[in-house]
Amino acid sequence: MDVFVPFDADSPKSRLSSLFEPNERRGFAKAMLRDVLDAIDAAGLGPTVLATADIDIDYPVLVDDRALSTAVNAAIDDAGTPVAVVVADLPLASAAALERLVKPDAGVVLAPGLGGGTNAMVVREPSFRADYHGASIRDHRERVLELGVEPAVVDSFRLAVDVDEPGDLAEVLLHGEGRSVAWLREAGVELAVTDGRVAVERSCQTS
Amino acid sequence: MDVFVPFDADSPKSRLSSLFEPNERRGFAKAMLRDVLDAIDAAGLGPTVLATADIDIDYPVLVDDRALSTAVNAAIDDAGTPVAVVVADLPLASAAALERLVKPDAGVVLAPGLGGGTNAMVVREPSFRADYHGASIRDHRERVLELGVEPAVVDSFRLAVDVDEPGDLAEVLLHGEGRSVAWLREAGVELAVTDGRVAVERSCQTS
Repeated sequence: MDVFVPFDADSPKSRLSSLFEPNERRGFAKAMLRDVLDAIDAAGLGPTVLATADIDIDYPVLVDDRALSTAVNAAIDDAGTPVAVVVADLPLASAAALERLVKPDAGVVLAPGLGGGTNAMVVREPSFRADYHGASIRDHRERVLELGVEPAVVDSFRLAVDVDEPGDLAEVLLHGEGRSVAWLREAGVELAVTDGRVAVERSCQTS
Repeated sequence: MDVFVPFDADSPKSRLSSLFEPNERRGFAKAMLRDVLDAIDAAGLGPTVLATADIDIDYPVLVDDRALSTAVNAAIDDAGTPVAVVVADLPLASAAALERLVKPDAGVVLAPGLGGGTNAMVVREPSFRADYHGASIRDHRERVLELGVEPAVVDSFRLAVDVDEPGDLAEVLLHGEGRSVAWLREAGVELAVTDGRVAVERSCQTS
């Protein structure tokens, strides 16, 4: 199955700017992208990066600089169903989690992200259209029901943890095993264990 | 299998004090507890509330006012293995997720919570001891490995979302189906959809 991975090649992860400089954010975003691509590949699926500009990476790249939902829907149309879309900032994504994503024989399979996003989807129903604006998981569920199809929802922590804000990095440090966690450790980002949830702190600047 | 659900009957959910009065926090905590107990029951398991003080609820209650880890380990010792512990603030817990928790035939099965906690565990290895301090999921993994046992980790969003802070309520509003989400709606808590992750806002005070 074709799996598209949308990627902002220009100015990714702006909400991490309190911790990282722009070039660092690009480096970390690419480490996360490679973790996601490797996990998709390990699950026996065929990843293609759907990037806003050409990037240097060992996987197929399709460049489309239009808005996210427009580019994703065009890629779905061109590829035909079944097809999957997995966001690029899931450093905990694993082959096992992706195998669970593609397993249900449903018209649309959705994997929620923290905070209402849609971190992964499988589309078998050709008339389904993605819309990543706002609380997209809620909107996507409603759209699927409007098509007369019952959506399958995959219950996965590893697919739910997308990295947008500094607090999300704690999950990567706690559970990551790939390039992203190695990148963070190299950058001096460490767990800060307090009485409540763990946070992160950056002990040194490498730039 | 016996499943213990530790519950702070006195002053639960203090980190929600910006939104709710103490009596409201007790009411919401109890709604979450009942959702968890119902999910455990629906999974064919036998829930017992391990409470700091007696509470009125339609499930067995064991009162132990000692510190959390002390009370949990005493309950594990008395019940014998296999035994499970599931925290009380998991309003998205489902029977399906709990069935996945008890399925692996491992000495210890762990379900991580957001921010480093251990939201659920199954203990078949009698010498294992719980310690909920700090980033407990990391410590529990290390303890299991020290016992020469490979821990199984359950990949579940529904078991990972524990409600501690106002931002966590967005997940309940987006994905909840039980008493907790009904309680929040009754209290006037609604999703506030912004450009990034969704948050919550309270439109009215009912107290």
